[in-house]
Amino acid sequence: MAHRIKIKIYYEDTDAGGVVYYAKYLNYLERARTEFLSDHGINVAELHNLGYFFVVTHVDIHYRQPARLGDIIEVTTEINELRNASMTIKSHILRDNAVLAEADVTLACIDKNGKPTRFPEGFNTLKE
Amino acid sequence: MAHRIKIKIYYEDTDAGGVVYYAKYLNYLERARTEFLSDHGINVAELHNLGYFFVVTHVDIHYRQPARLGDIIEVTTEINELRNASMTIKSHILRDNAVLAEADVTLACIDKNGKPTRFPEGFNTLKE
Amino acid sequence: MAHRIKIKIYYEDTDAGGVVYYAKYLNYLERARTEFLSDHGINVAELHNLGYFFVVTHVDIHYRQPARLGDIIEVTTEINELRNASMTIKSHILRDNAVLAEADVTLACIDKNGKPTRFPEGFNTLKE
Amino acid sequence: MAHRIKIKIYYEDTDAGGVVYYAKYLNYLERARTEFLSDHGINVAELHNLGYFFVVTHVDIHYRQPARLGDIIEVTTEINELRNASMTIKSHILRDNAVLAEADVTLACIDKNGKPTRFPEGFNTLKE
Repeated sequence: MAHRIKIKIYYEDTDAGGVVYYAKYLNYLERARTEFLSDHGINVAELHNLGYFFVVTHVDIHYRQPARLGDIIEVTTEINELRNASMTIKSHILRDNAVLAEADVTLACIDKNGKPTRFPEGFNTLKE
Repeated sequence: MAHRIKIKIYYEDTDAGGVVYYAKYLNYLERARTEFLSDHGINVAELHNLGYFFVVTHVDIHYRQPARLGDIIEVTTEINELRNASMTIKSHILRDNAVLAEADVTLACIDKNGKPTRFPEGFNTLKE
Repeated sequence: MAHRIKIKIYYEDTDAGGVVYYAKYLNYLERARTEFLSDHGINVAELHNLGYFFVVTHVDIHYRQPARLGDIIEVTTEINELRNASMTIKSHILRDNAVLAEADVTLACIDKNGKPTRFPEGFNTLKE
Repeated sequence: MAHRIKIKIYYEDTDAGGVVYYAKYLNYLERARTEFLSDHGINVAELHNLGYFFVVTHVDIHYRQPARLGDIIEVTTEINELRNASMTIKSHILRDNAVLAEADVTLACIDKNGKPTRFPEGFNTLKE
């Protein structure tokens, strides 16, 4: 089963249309994959200090229904494809199991000089 | 004792200085006071739908030490002064009990036309 | 030729990786299409007040190279497909004509009740 | 006369209350002081690369009237006090010369280790 986190919607997340601003969902995706990695023993902040950075190279996101002020939504994270220096993650954004959005995000691992580099230890277990 | 919530710092919160961007602390203050009100039975989103809005009229914030990627900070919320149509909230932003920032925020209650209006029922118990 | 706007990168746009945070590019795309529409005589804020809302239903964005603090980037906007109640926009994000990112964004026109509705007058000239 | 920049309000700036989200004004203040410094020959991004950082230590902001979607606002920047390693800036946020907000922001200059350090050359001319 996919990893899940809950997120509550505050005014900061919404726009004058009365719904969550479309770019904000990418923030939620980052929170979800950080917690997903954390639950697998991978600490993004520590890796950052060691010189491993994860950059997003592609996002494909479909917006189905809007989230609104006060909603509690869930964001799922699942690895679709794990390569040596990049991976693709599938996420769903849900409210009461209705799909609000779904996204495929591709991340690459780079070093301090911006060069692609192999994921550090621990990533090989992510798909198990 | 003051109400407390925990917040984790993600990339979205930080800037190129390597620390949390100074405006973001105001987002945290909003999250903290929304949860503080929620714990007192006051649902900001429901009140929004009923035509009660809480607008910030004043912020005074001192930044002492920066928060960084991966930190888990705490935000306290305490009512300093409660009037009929406005209130002042004292907050501290803490990491391991060190004060990162402290803020006084004044909120006013307004109606759909932007006119100041008395807080709805339930607010009178906030200071008890 | 595609419509272009310039955007300067401030601290607010960057993250602890030293580059522009990936969600921010969606903010730039919104600014660019608002100005594109404005240059065609379409005022998004006025339409908002008249009950016409433009919601993003799909984003596909490839990130090629990062933008950094102090950069001045350009965002192009071009209509790829214009239908009765939705359209697809092609954008490039450029720095000195190097492509930093490219995106396809689909927007739908909805009314106050969230129902799809035909674009108001003026949109038919967008492709000419 | 105080330095002025114009800023247009997009959906990204607003919240479900239909007005600009209160934290966003701090983003505008950063843009305004960056342009103010730039007009005085001081490039914040270059100084960042040289190891000079400007951190905000205090903000005092009064919100008078809300800005809304589509508004074009102006942000003024004026040095109130210039010391060796810190300065206080007075700003007004205006729409058609009505004051929407006014703020005092104190900035300190720090080095790579977070230690207070004298402003680099060029800052001495800011008050003239």
